[in-house]
Order: sequence, then C-alpha cells, then structure tokens
Amino acid sequence: MKTTQPGRRSFINKIALGSLAAMAIPDLALSAVTEKSQKVNLTPGNVILFQGDSITDAGRNRNNPKINDQGALGGGYAFLAASELLFRNPDKKLQIHNRGISGNKVYQLAELWENDAISLKPDILSILVGVNDYWHLVKFGYKGTLETYRTDYRTLLQRTKDKLPDVKLIIGEPFALLGTAVDKTWFPAFYEYQHAAKELADEFNAAFVPYQKVFDKALEHAPVEYWAPDGVHPSVAGAKLMAHAWLQSIK
Amino acid sequence: MKTTQPGRRSFINKIALGSLAAMAIPDLALSAVTEKSQKVNLTPGNVILFQGDSITDAGRNRNNPKINDQGALGGGYAFLAASELLFRNPDKKLQIHNRGISGNKVYQLAELWENDAISLKPDILSILVGVNDYWHLVKFGYKGTLETYRTDYRTLLQRTKDKLPDVKLIIGEPFALLGTAVDKTWFPAFYEYQHAAKELADEFNAAFVPYQKVFDKALEHAPVEYWAPDGVHPSVAGAKLMAHAWLQSIK
Repeated sequence: MKTTQPGRRSFINKIALGSLAAMAIPDLALSAVTEKSQKVNLTPGNVILFQGDSITDAGRNRNNPKINDQGALGGGYAFLAASELLFRNPDKKLQIHNRGISGNKVYQLAELWENDAISLKPDILSILVGVNDYWHLVKFGYKGTLETYRTDYRTLLQRTKDKLPDVKLIIGEPFALLGTAVDKTWFPAFYEYQHAAKELADEFNAAFVPYQKVFDKALEHAPVEYWAPDGVHPSVAGAKLMAHAWLQSIK
Repeated sequence: MKTTQPGRRSFINKIALGSLAAMAIPDLALSAVTEKSQKVNLTPGNVILFQGDSITDAGRNRNNPKINDQGALGGGYAFLAASELLFRNPDKKLQIHNRGISGNKVYQLAELWENDAISLKPDILSILVGVNDYWHLVKFGYKGTLETYRTDYRTLLQRTKDKLPDVKLIIGEPFALLGTAVDKTWFPAFYEYQHAAKELADEFNAAFVPYQKVFDKALEHAPVEYWAPDGVHPSVAGAKLMAHAWLQSIK
C-alpha cells in the first residue's frame, strides 16, 4: 500500500483503519467481547487507571510513580494494552497508571482506594478482581464469601461513582483455568463470582471484558501451559490475549 | 462479524487475516519497511533470539533463563514483539530469547557470542547494535571508529553464518533522535553507521528494519519526548512503534 498523503490526517486515518482491522483478530476476543458490551470512548487527555490483583500488578515497580512508564506499568496485560493505546494515539496525550497489587481482594482494593484510585482522577478505570476472593477462601483461610465479594464490590463501585461521577468503568471477568493451582472443585462455585462481576458491570453501566470466554476459546488452540500455566496467572501469550480482549472495550 | 466455524482452522485464518490487516497500521512502519526489505518466514518450532544493546535489553532479568518469559524478555520492543508472535501463533511452539545487554557495542556482542547467540541455535536472529559504537566514541573515550563497527559487525555476521548456516537474520537500523542525549553534532557522522548496518544487511541477505525512518515519521505526530526522550532509549510508545516495525519483517 502506498500513501500519497503521509501527513497527520493520513496517519490518524491509518490508525483508525488499523483499529477496525485489529478487531478481526482473533475471533475469540471479537465474538466474546465486541457485540454485547458497552464500549468506552477514548478522548484527548484521558487518564486511564488499571486496578486489580497480581494479574494486573504483573511485577510493576510500586516505587515508580511515573506515568506511561514500563516499570510502573509492569509486564502484564495492563502494560501491553497501554503500549497499544500509546502507540496508536500519539495525539491524545494519554496518561496511564497501574495500581494493581498482588493478592488483592475487593476489600483490599477498598482500603487503598482513595490514594490508589480516586486521587488519580481517572477518566477510564479498569478493574479486574475476584480470583483471590474465591481462591483465598478455599485455600488460605480467608473468611469472605461470594456475598462479601458482591457487596464489597458494589460498595466500591458506588463510592467510585459518587466521587468520580463521569468515570468510565471497564470491569474484567475474573477467570480460572484448570492448571497447577486450579482444579475441578473450583467449579461451579467460581462461576458465581463471574456472574457477580457481570451483574455489577451491567448495574454500573460498565464495559465488561469476558476473560473466561476468551481464555476458553484460546484453549482450543494451545493448552493451559501456553496461556496461563497455573490457571490464574497468564503467560506472555495469555497477557497479550487479555490485552487484545481489553482493547476491544475501547472505541 | 460472526464465525460459523470457530475451530482451529477458523482461528488460524483469522490470525492470518489479522496479520495482513495489522500491516496496514500505521503507514509509517509499513511504507518504510515492507516494500523493499527481505522478509523472514516463521515456521513451527522456531527459536527466535533478540540481540543488541540497552534498547533490546530493556531491563530484562539476566538471571532468568526462561524462554517466552516476561522477566527474561525485558520491557522493550523485544518483549512487545514476542508477545505478539506468541499470541498470534499458538500452534507454532515458538521459543523466544532476549540476550541484549546495555551499553554493548559490536565487539562486546562478539565476546559473548558463543554463549549468548550460537549456543542457543536460533532459527531467527535479530540484532540491533550501533548507537553505542558511535556514542561511546564521541562521549566516553571509546577508541573504535566507523570502520571498527563495520569490520567487527561483518566478522560477527560471517561467524554466525559459518556456525549457523540456515539462520535467518534481521538487522535493525541504529537510530538517534534529537533528544536530551543526542545533539546535532551526531549528524551526519551517525548516518554512516546506519549506512554500514544497511550494507551489511544486504550483504548477508538479512531483513532490515529501518528504525530511523520509522521514528522520523512518528515525530511528525508527537515530539521526541513521546517516543524516546533522550533520543536513544524508547518510551513505551516508542518501544511499541519499534515492535510494530520489527513485526513487518516477519511473514
């Protein structure tokens, strides 16, 4: 393809074309995400915050306060999604943060929420939380139940909307694959956590990223070792799969 | 778009479609890379090695020997390109390494080449080196000249071809932007290093990634602070730009 007008307009047009084209790959993310869910509009100057547990944290340097910085963004889906947003939108002056913390359950997000979410004044707030709310209950003596998850999460979202009425929310579906840390006893109990997250996304008019469906589809093409060996923490391929799915929620 | 046959064939077809579509974005990488250069064919079981200096290193954990691992791949273009390759090719069982080391010039690559390149038996070997060969000459008392760069690089490539006759080479163009570490005195002297890299790519039938053109094009859309603040080390946006350009050399 040759470009006769290589200026700004052409660049942006090509990026827009690319965004559409990218939605065609792979169908697993497309079919699961793009047809049903809300989408979030990206506008100039947007502050984007990724919140969650270890999957979001992904080894980020918590002492690094820089915006749009690899060390601060970690090495997971948040960084991979951020890199795509920054690359595709050089004109938008986006500011992207990651405040995920390994091991976090909803009540732990709530404890740090003022500092690690509200005070950053995000325009777009992405949250992925829930796997530890179940896992730590069944394996590590955590006392919270499904109802704790649902109630704490609703309270957190309502508090967020009260403080940041214009914030656009993206809620990720907690996911678990049969891997070294996940066995069949997780199901169907864990499905209820996924349903709760989906219901809250609907209740708060949030975009919803159905990671479980996305990973289930991916498992048709390579085994769990390829996408998330322990069934909870994604590999590089799995993190990119998540980033791809997450990006479908942005228009 | 709906998929009536969501099986393996459909998945792979969609990915192939996506690869073509992705080449349409952005035009800056496309026009600079895809029309002229050799391309490298990706086949099942390929071992892919990224070699170079700090731009390739990008904070990788040098004590981490794992394949396809974020910590081992670092946080730069090599990781971003790897994540795309792994995501798009779940059937290919790729094995991706990064052995870039900050500060390296060609002779320093050569010192570790047996261990950090030959012994890994790469099918695809990507090398980006040259900015330090110039920078350290003018700023840090390094004694090597342009001819040192050219001669050392040719010797390294010949040695590689002797040991690994079937290796497919990708040579990256060293680049420098006017930033906090790069001033106008770099040019035109630095252009000669770029010419040398291109000539060697042609001589050894390597794919060539013209990063300078890619960054120059990107600078039409955001300032150097956005893509590579010091003019040498890319930001997250710059690393993704590089990964995008690099991926154009794969078919």
